[in-house]
Amino acid sequence: MKNYIRQDPWKIIEEGFIPEYNRISESLFSIGNGRIGHRANFEETYTGDSLQGSYVAGIYYQDKTRVGWWKNGYPEYFTKVVNAANWIGIDIEINGNMLDLAVWKVLEFSRELNMKEGFLYRSALVEDRNGHQVRIESKRICSLADPEIGAIRYMITPMNFDGDLTATLYVDGDVMNEDSNYDEKCWNEVDQFAGKGIGWVVTETKNTGFYVATGMCYEIMQNGEKMNLDARPETRPKYAANKVSFRVTSGIEYTIFKYAGVVSSEYHGTSNLEKVCISTLERAVEKGFEGLLRDHIEMWVKKWEQSDILINGDVAAQQGIRYNIFQLNQTYTGEDERLNIGPKGFTGEKYGGSTYWDTEAYCIPFFLATADEHVARNLLIYRYKHLGKAIENAKKLGFTEGAALYPMVTMNGEESHNEWEITFEEIHRNGSIAYAIYNYIRYTDDTTYLETHGLEVLIAVSRFWSQRVNWSNEKQQYVILGVTGPNEYENNVNNNWYTNFIAVWTLRYTIESIGSVMSVNTMAWESLRTKLDFKEDEIERWKGICSKMYYPVDTERDIFLQQDGFLDKEFTPVRDLPPEEVPINQHWSWDRILRSCYIKQADVLQGLFFFEDHFDIATIKRNFDFYEPLTVHESSLSPCVHAIHASLLGYRQMAYAFFLHSARLDLDDYNNDTDNGCHITSMAGTWMAFTMGFGGMRVKNGLLQFSPFLPDQWKNYEFSIRFRGTVLHIGVSKHHIVIRNTSEKDIEIKMYDTHVSVASGSKTEVEAIHS
Amino acid sequence: MKNYIRQDPWKIIEEGFIPEYNRISESLFSIGNGRIGHRANFEETYTGDSLQGSYVAGIYYQDKTRVGWWKNGYPEYFTKVVNAANWIGIDIEINGNMLDLAVWKVLEFSRELNMKEGFLYRSALVEDRNGHQVRIESKRICSLADPEIGAIRYMITPMNFDGDLTATLYVDGDVMNEDSNYDEKCWNEVDQFAGKGIGWVVTETKNTGFYVATGMCYEIMQNGEKMNLDARPETRPKYAANKVSFRVTSGIEYTIFKYAGVVSSEYHGTSNLEKVCISTLERAVEKGFEGLLRDHIEMWVKKWEQSDILINGDVAAQQGIRYNIFQLNQTYTGEDERLNIGPKGFTGEKYGGSTYWDTEAYCIPFFLATADEHVARNLLIYRYKHLGKAIENAKKLGFTEGAALYPMVTMNGEESHNEWEITFEEIHRNGSIAYAIYNYIRYTDDTTYLETHGLEVLIAVSRFWSQRVNWSNEKQQYVILGVTGPNEYENNVNNNWYTNFIAVWTLRYTIESIGSVMSVNTMAWESLRTKLDFKEDEIERWKGICSKMYYPVDTERDIFLQQDGFLDKEFTPVRDLPPEEVPINQHWSWDRILRSCYIKQADVLQGLFFFEDHFDIATIKRNFDFYEPLTVHESSLSPCVHAIHASLLGYRQMAYAFFLHSARLDLDDYNNDTDNGCHITSMAGTWMAFTMGFGGMRVKNGLLQFSPFLPDQWKNYEFSIRFRGTVLHIGVSKHHIVIRNTSEKDIEIKMYDTHVSVASGSKTEVEAIHS
Repeated sequence: MKNYIRQDPWKIIEEGFIPEYNRISESLFSIGNGRIGHRANFEETYTGDSLQGSYVAGIYYQDKTRVGWWKNGYPEYFTKVVNAANWIGIDIEINGNMLDLAVWKVLEFSRELNMKEGFLYRSALVEDRNGHQVRIESKRICSLADPEIGAIRYMITPMNFDGDLTATLYVDGDVMNEDSNYDEKCWNEVDQFAGKGIGWVVTETKNTGFYVATGMCYEIMQNGEKMNLDARPETRPKYAANKVSFRVTSGIEYTIFKYAGVVSSEYHGTSNLEKVCISTLERAVEKGFEGLLRDHIEMWVKKWEQSDILINGDVAAQQGIRYNIFQLNQTYTGEDERLNIGPKGFTGEKYGGSTYWDTEAYCIPFFLATADEHVARNLLIYRYKHLGKAIENAKKLGFTEGAALYPMVTMNGEESHNEWEITFEEIHRNGSIAYAIYNYIRYTDDTTYLETHGLEVLIAVSRFWSQRVNWSNEKQQYVILGVTGPNEYENNVNNNWYTNFIAVWTLRYTIESIGSVMSVNTMAWESLRTKLDFKEDEIERWKGICSKMYYPVDTERDIFLQQDGFLDKEFTPVRDLPPEEVPINQHWSWDRILRSCYIKQADVLQGLFFFEDHFDIATIKRNFDFYEPLTVHESSLSPCVHAIHASLLGYRQMAYAFFLHSARLDLDDYNNDTDNGCHITSMAGTWMAFTMGFGGMRVKNGLLQFSPFLPDQWKNYEFSIRFRGTVLHIGVSKHHIVIRNTSEKDIEIKMYDTHVSVASGSKTEVEAIHS
Repeated sequence: MKNYIRQDPWKIIEEGFIPEYNRISESLFSIGNGRIGHRANFEETYTGDSLQGSYVAGIYYQDKTRVGWWKNGYPEYFTKVVNAANWIGIDIEINGNMLDLAVWKVLEFSRELNMKEGFLYRSALVEDRNGHQVRIESKRICSLADPEIGAIRYMITPMNFDGDLTATLYVDGDVMNEDSNYDEKCWNEVDQFAGKGIGWVVTETKNTGFYVATGMCYEIMQNGEKMNLDARPETRPKYAANKVSFRVTSGIEYTIFKYAGVVSSEYHGTSNLEKVCISTLERAVEKGFEGLLRDHIEMWVKKWEQSDILINGDVAAQQGIRYNIFQLNQTYTGEDERLNIGPKGFTGEKYGGSTYWDTEAYCIPFFLATADEHVARNLLIYRYKHLGKAIENAKKLGFTEGAALYPMVTMNGEESHNEWEITFEEIHRNGSIAYAIYNYIRYTDDTTYLETHGLEVLIAVSRFWSQRVNWSNEKQQYVILGVTGPNEYENNVNNNWYTNFIAVWTLRYTIESIGSVMSVNTMAWESLRTKLDFKEDEIERWKGICSKMYYPVDTERDIFLQQDGFLDKEFTPVRDLPPEEVPINQHWSWDRILRSCYIKQADVLQGLFFFEDHFDIATIKRNFDFYEPLTVHESSLSPCVHAIHASLLGYRQMAYAFFLHSARLDLDDYNNDTDNGCHITSMAGTWMAFTMGFGGMRVKNGLLQFSPFLPDQWKNYEFSIRFRGTVLHIGVSKHHIVIRNTSEKDIEIKMYDTHVSVASGSKTEVEAIHS
């Protein structure tokens, strides 16, 4: 854990420059707009340790997989978010010395991420070996209002000298992914151009054929006046630059406005790309930095109206939750159903692939409650469009008859991860695809989704489960052998309780959904039945599986068992682990982890979270009390679920601790890995921990319900929820809950056990029950 | 399966050239002498598909491992047998056309491996596009008598034309391993030289620093007269050549004698290497090809005297068993305890690492019975010398106090494989290290080995087991969790019966061995006790584990269970698999294999083979009858063990089939992978299948026992066994068993249930009991 980020309700602040933490800060202070994003690298040259990272949504590369021993069916490629052209670059040379914070003396330094207004700010006072001091100040956005535009205001002031300054403003597409499997560069040169005041680079991803044009133009001002400078254009393969030199005077501030246009073949014709890039740059210049910033902030104001959470009395928590919400909104805006939420968003390139089960299991609730319905719906459509590939994927593994196995990691629907424990065996992911459909419809009541898209997916997934189980003669029950559950500290286990449960749940939900579509829209059903060649006896087999599924249990403790054989382990709680051996994945050998009792992320508790309605509180408590002490939370997705359970079970201190862990995971570099990028998807888990944990939010029988409590550490809090056309703001303080309805629709909700009506534009107050 | 090798009792013969099978033949016809070896590549240029392969024993390269997702404790390197300088090369240009069997018309072709005399012979009649026909004939050896020497006689006859011939004789060290993880070349250039009539190349392995000098010289003859030709020396990095041109006349045979000297820093001072190489070449030239061949054949005669198996009435079986014995003798001669038996010997480079558990579990019996005792002993010493590394290896995995875990794959004692299922989890290998000590002492009665080396290894291995078990509260027994057994079609299982059994067996054998060393040589024990800081209570703990170990069983069938949960599988026998889906590892996805009931190599049967004495025949039969039908034998190590059990159980047809499968595995390319190299270690299994299966050979209480039977397909057979200073030849025919003792020592053996004395130099006849 680290503790160098200054706490502030609306800002992430680094004061003083710590080179060892630079990669962490580069991740933390990343900015993005759902379409493009950039790590918080410096504009000027930096020869110290840095992970240069610029990303364009949807643009990926198929990196040949790297396996020790190839096995049949392994995916050929690991898809990676590709590190794209760096458009922030402004090299500064002063009197022939390259300005470089790794070389110059850093007298003052601060980096700020303004979450309210969505910009990155940095200021530094630096000194060269001759004692020449320079102040630099930069402000940078990826425009939320015009998402193909990035803009920078870079100010430079010689403090104690007159001298010569040369600025090189460039776009550099000759970049590579640091974790490329075979040290391959994944961009082909297409074209580059540099003219006076402008430059662009067109590159193409090597094996996926995406074209991206990245252009830049700029203006340099002195005292509010544009300087008339001669530019020296320069190009080399995948690189375009302008060099400008001028005399600088002590105490005068020089301002460089640099605009970037990043346009890709995902949105524009390939042949047209340079033109589009130029017109994007023209648009940017016309608006100017301040204009772009204004529009950008306006969009952020709207985002925050919909999604802000206010906490009074606890700056650490306030900063944490806002940071999580901020990053989620930077990563995914929901306007393009081809996009999804990568585990690192625009903050890094680790893990590759944009889509894991994280989206369905963790992210959808956030977008359901803080954005328009089409946003979450687009996440479902993403998977619907990949159904064909999921069927292909299942075929490769030996399944037949339209069975679908969604990939564990994907960009285009193809499986693109390369560990069998994950790729082949974490089949539970298929359940979360079904669960997301259920969750979306439960929340929105958009039942037509079932007819138009959802049921087709459900049937294909159910067909998979139906073939994936096998009958155990020994047990006289169905079993599911050879799986890896969400707890990846167990591999290739038999009868993972979570997997068995979600398999049966999917079958039941599919049967139920067939019934409801059949009765509501017979035509739709008939057409689907024909399309899928669906046979009635499939339902019979599914029912048979549901009624005869085996679930491992510990009868003595009366709990569900993570998997067969789990009781053979030596049980010692996590708290007894020597602190120097934690996190165990950084200190223990892999086989020791596997045979230990320690849980990366508790399967059974994940199931009890998804399917809470199926169990009574006593059951949840018994299981939580058993599994919680064994859980090391070395998955970022773990603490949030524990926070929700702990809230429900009245373990409020614990709930608070888990929430804080989840909310500040990256800010405090909890797992010592934020240098690689932030844990974007778990941030949606933080949001759930808050709303479903502290807020006690649920949707049951079409009714939005809350059962909030106030952690001891807080004075009060407020969160906002969109639900079926209404917008509610739930304020929770020691004695009162205030519900404001700022929408144009009345709503009835349940607060604790009481039905409460909140008319459009009004607010209702309810007594708080925090005991 | 393929069927293109002509059957012959003493030769491996390919008639007619099938380019698609060229890699297979290159493997099959490989020659070696325990020190150097070469695949059966052509001397002249061949632009068709080929795996060029030249190997030098003990010279390896550490290839950076390739894993999808790095986990703590993974080995950094995968050691690979390094493809070394090609010394066979003789390019032939005729009238400006490069002789190339991929381009020229092949009118006649044959390749022969003469096993009796240990040479590779090839003859071809080829025609260029102008109708010029050339006969070539080559004979090649890796001298068994002078193991740093290779020699070639290459004859070339223009059949229907006069013309110009240019021969380029070269050594090419600019080679690489085809399966290099990152396409790296692993040799550094050191020096190369070419003078008239001579050339050499010195190279150094990049990260392991082995130096190898590979030199060549030659003579060219016409009608038995040395031709006086002007040579044009040529060098480039890692390459040295001589070009000679002369006029050739139709019908005249021109003979090139090429000699190679391959010397390494393993046997000579690095600074001296070129000199040693030159003197090796001088020695070769002095002897001449015929002289070298004579000495070589003489050595082979001796090898065959000790190890031949004669089968009358079944050429396929005769050819198969001789091929297996031939390759074993080519691979390992036992003179250097730093060497071991690589899974591919000198026939290919797949799998890397020289040493797997194959050596201890399969190879030692062959060398015990067909070579001097020091040969098998050197294989034990190899592991003894690696004890420190094995302790280090265990430490890396979290074990303490002198516990040793021998590596799954190694060259220098370090673990150098990169799949956790194998590297970390196949801990059963540690048991086979102990078993080999037991097996060696049982056979040789060399109990001093225990005092000087064996016990130290046993204690370290036992300390590992002692820490690796854990107490299951649930079972109230010790368990071993998270292992992979010899059956690699199950990964990360709990309580693999074989592993649990061999763990306890090791502990018991160690306790017993401590007792015997203590009583026989108290001084030795005391010194070891001090050295190892051995505490009496360790024995107490070991005894506790032995008495409270859990073994999975199927009480209904009264069999041992491969592992916990095995009975949950759907059991359908291998014979019901669609033939087009076999071998399953080439047709099924990995996860399907894992959750299926199919067994690559049957664990339980392996255990019953090792520890036959612990079980009655009925138990072996019940287990064999259950596991055999589920075994796909996709490990080359599998059929031999089944042959031995089948023999014991009276399943004679089955025994014969398994024997043939094992014996002709490569000749018939049974698993479609001989192109990568032959399965050398399983060849020792074939030998066991013969002697312990058909011959019923055992050693019990110091007594050599046989209980032979004659497979229906055979007229008679004879095999030779060295045992404690005697040499026996056991001839088995329909009615009689003849035992000849050609040594100078009398011996009493057991034949069937009768004690039989065979005096030195005499023979004894016993009635055969084949029923």
